[in-house]
Amino acid sequence: MFVRMVKAATAEQLSAVRERAVAAGLAVYEEQGSTGSTLAILGPSGASAALEQEFGALAGVASVSRATRPYRLASREFRETPTVVKVRDAVIGGGTLTLMAGPCSIESREQLFEVAQGVADAGATLLRGGAFKPRTSPYAFQGLGLDGLRLLAEARERTGLPIITEVMEPAQVDMVSEFADVLQVGTRNMQNFSLLNAVGRTRMPVMLKRGLSGTIEEWLLAAEYILAAGNTQVILCERGIRTFETAARNTLDLNAVPILRKLTHLPVIVDPSHATGKRWMVAPMSYAGVAAGADGIMVEVHPKPEEAWSDGEQSLTIPMFQRLAGELRSIHTLVTPLHNDPGAAGASPSKK
Amino acid sequence: MFVRMVKAATAEQLSAVRERAVAAGLAVYEEQGSTGSTLAILGPSGASAALEQEFGALAGVASVSRATRPYRLASREFRETPTVVKVRDAVIGGGTLTLMAGPCSIESREQLFEVAQGVADAGATLLRGGAFKPRTSPYAFQGLGLDGLRLLAEARERTGLPIITEVMEPAQVDMVSEFADVLQVGTRNMQNFSLLNAVGRTRMPVMLKRGLSGTIEEWLLAAEYILAAGNTQVILCERGIRTFETAARNTLDLNAVPILRKLTHLPVIVDPSHATGKRWMVAPMSYAGVAAGADGIMVEVHPKPEEAWSDGEQSLTIPMFQRLAGELRSIHTLVTPLHNDPGAAGASPSKK
Amino acid sequence: MFVRMVKAATAEQLSAVRERAVAAGLAVYEEQGSTGSTLAILGPSGASAALEQEFGALAGVASVSRATRPYRLASREFRETPTVVKVRDAVIGGGTLTLMAGPCSIESREQLFEVAQGVADAGATLLRGGAFKPRTSPYAFQGLGLDGLRLLAEARERTGLPIITEVMEPAQVDMVSEFADVLQVGTRNMQNFSLLNAVGRTRMPVMLKRGLSGTIEEWLLAAEYILAAGNTQVILCERGIRTFETAARNTLDLNAVPILRKLTHLPVIVDPSHATGKRWMVAPMSYAGVAAGADGIMVEVHPKPEEAWSDGEQSLTIPMFQRLAGELRSIHTLVTPLHNDPGAAGASPSKK
Amino acid sequence: MFVRMVKAATAEQLSAVRERAVAAGLAVYEEQGSTGSTLAILGPSGASAALEQEFGALAGVASVSRATRPYRLASREFRETPTVVKVRDAVIGGGTLTLMAGPCSIESREQLFEVAQGVADAGATLLRGGAFKPRTSPYAFQGLGLDGLRLLAEARERTGLPIITEVMEPAQVDMVSEFADVLQVGTRNMQNFSLLNAVGRTRMPVMLKRGLSGTIEEWLLAAEYILAAGNTQVILCERGIRTFETAARNTLDLNAVPILRKLTHLPVIVDPSHATGKRWMVAPMSYAGVAAGADGIMVEVHPKPEEAWSDGEQSLTIPMFQRLAGELRSIHTLVTPLHNDPGAAGASPSKK
Repeated sequence: MFVRMVKAATAEQLSAVRERAVAAGLAVYEEQGSTGSTLAILGPSGASAALEQEFGALAGVASVSRATRPYRLASREFRETPTVVKVRDAVIGGGTLTLMAGPCSIESREQLFEVAQGVADAGATLLRGGAFKPRTSPYAFQGLGLDGLRLLAEARERTGLPIITEVMEPAQVDMVSEFADVLQVGTRNMQNFSLLNAVGRTRMPVMLKRGLSGTIEEWLLAAEYILAAGNTQVILCERGIRTFETAARNTLDLNAVPILRKLTHLPVIVDPSHATGKRWMVAPMSYAGVAAGADGIMVEVHPKPEEAWSDGEQSLTIPMFQRLAGELRSIHTLVTPLHNDPGAAGASPSKK
Repeated sequence: MFVRMVKAATAEQLSAVRERAVAAGLAVYEEQGSTGSTLAILGPSGASAALEQEFGALAGVASVSRATRPYRLASREFRETPTVVKVRDAVIGGGTLTLMAGPCSIESREQLFEVAQGVADAGATLLRGGAFKPRTSPYAFQGLGLDGLRLLAEARERTGLPIITEVMEPAQVDMVSEFADVLQVGTRNMQNFSLLNAVGRTRMPVMLKRGLSGTIEEWLLAAEYILAAGNTQVILCERGIRTFETAARNTLDLNAVPILRKLTHLPVIVDPSHATGKRWMVAPMSYAGVAAGADGIMVEVHPKPEEAWSDGEQSLTIPMFQRLAGELRSIHTLVTPLHNDPGAAGASPSKK
Repeated sequence: MFVRMVKAATAEQLSAVRERAVAAGLAVYEEQGSTGSTLAILGPSGASAALEQEFGALAGVASVSRATRPYRLASREFRETPTVVKVRDAVIGGGTLTLMAGPCSIESREQLFEVAQGVADAGATLLRGGAFKPRTSPYAFQGLGLDGLRLLAEARERTGLPIITEVMEPAQVDMVSEFADVLQVGTRNMQNFSLLNAVGRTRMPVMLKRGLSGTIEEWLLAAEYILAAGNTQVILCERGIRTFETAARNTLDLNAVPILRKLTHLPVIVDPSHATGKRWMVAPMSYAGVAAGADGIMVEVHPKPEEAWSDGEQSLTIPMFQRLAGELRSIHTLVTPLHNDPGAAGASPSKK
Repeated sequence: MFVRMVKAATAEQLSAVRERAVAAGLAVYEEQGSTGSTLAILGPSGASAALEQEFGALAGVASVSRATRPYRLASREFRETPTVVKVRDAVIGGGTLTLMAGPCSIESREQLFEVAQGVADAGATLLRGGAFKPRTSPYAFQGLGLDGLRLLAEARERTGLPIITEVMEPAQVDMVSEFADVLQVGTRNMQNFSLLNAVGRTRMPVMLKRGLSGTIEEWLLAAEYILAAGNTQVILCERGIRTFETAARNTLDLNAVPILRKLTHLPVIVDPSHATGKRWMVAPMSYAGVAAGADGIMVEVHPKPEEAWSDGEQSLTIPMFQRLAGELRSIHTLVTPLHNDPGAAGASPSKK
């Protein structure tokens, strides 16, 4: 249940609510909004009418309500204001345009540094690069591993760009956290609950990609695992779903962007590279993603896509990314007021 | 097979090619491009190497090639230049922004005329309205039929907007053609081959909606039925596909926009109203559709959506559409050069 | 609404109910069950509480209830007893095993007669054969048309097997009805409502194939169009749905068999040939279909599959069908009591 | 590449082949068939023509061939004979009928022991029970964990039934292996490659469930991870895929059964409980699964389904399972010769 405190509620009043919840065996999460704090009081057994009444009678409590969605902390019901994730000097969400760019796999110092410098010059805000690669076949290149992480850290030093890279299992979380600025949970691991718990126990920003057949509700419940473990720094990434259509690799589900803006306060990134698998689709689908209201784009960039060890078909060259970055900034500047203006046709419903 | 004539080919040389094809029992379709005519020479048995050689040796023939796609007349291989469909004073495709708007079902003179005037004032380029309604249940409202068509014609007279309306069976084609400016073939009829043949035999513009589980290749083959019957005025409309996701009614497949721009010369419209089923998703998905490179948008507008006889949940009000129309014009102005500039990241591949 | 009459209700009492319904502008459908007649009283506006009360007070009325499903006449709520469709000497449903077999397309007198005799000898109960073929491409073989129908009629005379063949548009219904014993409405036409109405106005048995992305509810509503037009002789045919899996042509959805047995009284046929597209999958999926409780199987048989004009990949040879027919009879004999015994784990819920 | 040795090949000849492979940095897997050993020689770089020639020239080598599928050790190309997995006294595959039964979640000693005894008496061959439960929501019951494993071990002692239970992350593998006889990798973890590697390094039998949107090829590649890690005891379990149809929880894809029988030597189990989510569908879909050629069935059984902590809707009662077990044995006895007889219509193609 959600307990909303009055704006003038005292620390003692807040403590009293917390203590009562803990005594009932429930977990408490606090969110400070502009009109006062909201407490999410959660437990396996759910809310009881008696408890609700009891909380409602405590001093400083403005109202008590039940969650209407299965996810709680990820919901706009708990937190109305968009979450802004801070990653070193970069900011994700909150009206900014995030541009994550870099190679699918880190292949060598030369390859990584060339891309890193190129995308930094073009205005990328984060550097992406795969060190641990989840591959469908056990015989495919599985990534440089720890060596790749070290190269990423070096690339960060040279360019100043924070880095995002994938973590594939709980036992890797500590090691990857040492090097990365944002931990990526990949598509195939959207419901790897052990991994979600593990990244939730860190205080690192986490980008959670949607599973190939993950519903939006399941995706938000997966984010809820991370949030419930105490980590509020969660970013969602739409990267295409699996449908009957085979003309592109997957079907980029841009419907998800306005739906997520309505349901959750978490920032939303769109990955057109993996969703389409085709270089010539990356720019139009990036335009569309930003126009739909996404907080940013993740794209693959390779100095020589035709020689890439993985996913070369979908990688942009550095000059293509440079051009795209400028184009996306123009589109973002144009559409941001449309999404935020309460009277606009496309305004986020939560703003109305 | 495609026979490309030299630019200076004479009428006699063209006739000679045609006659040879007809003698071989094949059909001939001509397309006049900037570098000379292209003839598509088509038959059930496909091309034979011997015939290809024979055509290649005829005077005025520049080259002979086989189709690499199962659709022929719909392909960029046959016609490189985008098709521009003329509907009275309106133009669909060719860099213009088409805005089709109107009620899902025509309910009454008052309702239709109010919407028609409202969308005309807002800059809509066509008026949509359903007179014959394909409904999942036999007990649902099936449309006003002929009376609806008459109201549409009246609305056209009052507003000057050309009208688009659905035709559901071959026997209706003549009647609907008398009133409509564009015939719509609905989602459930994408592979109603008898209907495709029937609308193909008219010389009316036809908008062919994608089937709920129609692949892009099947959709282009459905368009091919219309083109092969002699009608070149075909428009495609993406309106969402059926997937596992149930958060919106269907999944708007915007991947289809750049894919169609690459594969076909036919104009592409996006319908976010039916794809999402939710009013608050119409604006962001319209932005995204135009940004992805669509030639226009079809949206449902109702004076009082909450009282609509069908699909009220997804209808915009007239003021919402007015605002949206302006927003879409801004986005279209911004993205059109990006899609057309040969050096741009998102340029149509056929322009490179 | 459903009005159940007492067993002893008189003709006058029945008439009184009918007249009241007609006076209210509603349509009446009667079903004679073992415990008395049930009247479905249907109209666009649905049932009103006042009318329900009024009907409940009429003499001879046992009870009045509202439909709980959007389909009415197709529902077990209206008719508890399984529908048995009689086709000349054959019977479909009601515990019998129907074996429909024949070529995908009728190609020639020799081909058709060889298959017809072969499958008749093997115990087929109906002969299938396509005269009008819905083809994805306009350049593919479209069927022999009227000549094919004539050959089918000849084959019936020679073998005694009733024939089933596809009708593709309302204007063909009369012609096809002259020759066929069962009209088939194909996958792509599941929601061709004009065609459903047209076959509904005949009194011919109709087999309605499931659309590639048709939900079971939409499928039953499509059947409802036929039933509401007055034709009670409807058979359903599961033939695979479109999913992400491409290892076979489509995904045969055998879940549909027990679901349909629970929801509807109409007989259910399974078509493993179109669902799989692979000859070596036809037998195991036929076993599975019969084991799941289907009333029969439709399979494609060709004397020389490697020379077939369409779908040769999936056609059985005549000896393969002969063997399969015997195998299916054994499985049917074994499983029929399991499905019908009220105490059995797999008993149809409606029997409990 | 696959190197087939002559039947009379000596140990020295085999060693020579192995040594050459190891020297080339490749991994070697040996399979002893009735006509001699086959060696799969695998590496990231794939086979080279030069190496193939070299192997072909070695003494004792009958033939060298390239894999035609992306999976190698899972393929019939490597191992023609069906794999038979031995689990204590039980045998899975090889013409036997496996019946895995038990509760979704272990809830208490009483619940588990009652079910265990009931299913043992009914002829179940393995006991299933969840101790670690992957749940969509972090607030749902997550299983009894280690206490559940201990109860399972006790239940095995009382009934003699070997036990199968899920392992959710690499760090749990050792602990679960101490108690379980078969490790289950769940649907959401089909492509949790770290977990696949971890269970592959054990020598425990592993049952790998298909992912909700896993293609058959991806599934076999996931099995390949386990096989490539050195564990040959892999069982596949079809449990429904995600499609647009919502009438049941998922769509049980029985097409997968004959396809897997053709492509792989690994045994195949069908789980109708999770695939349908409905108790009344379990029996008919179990009949269908066995009829399609599956090596067995996994079903959920609960003493009082209406009181189950998870998935009660789909659980059979103990008497329902007792009846079902007998029915499945009859069907299995009838269909096994049909699947194995080389002349039968449904015979596994690999037997022809």
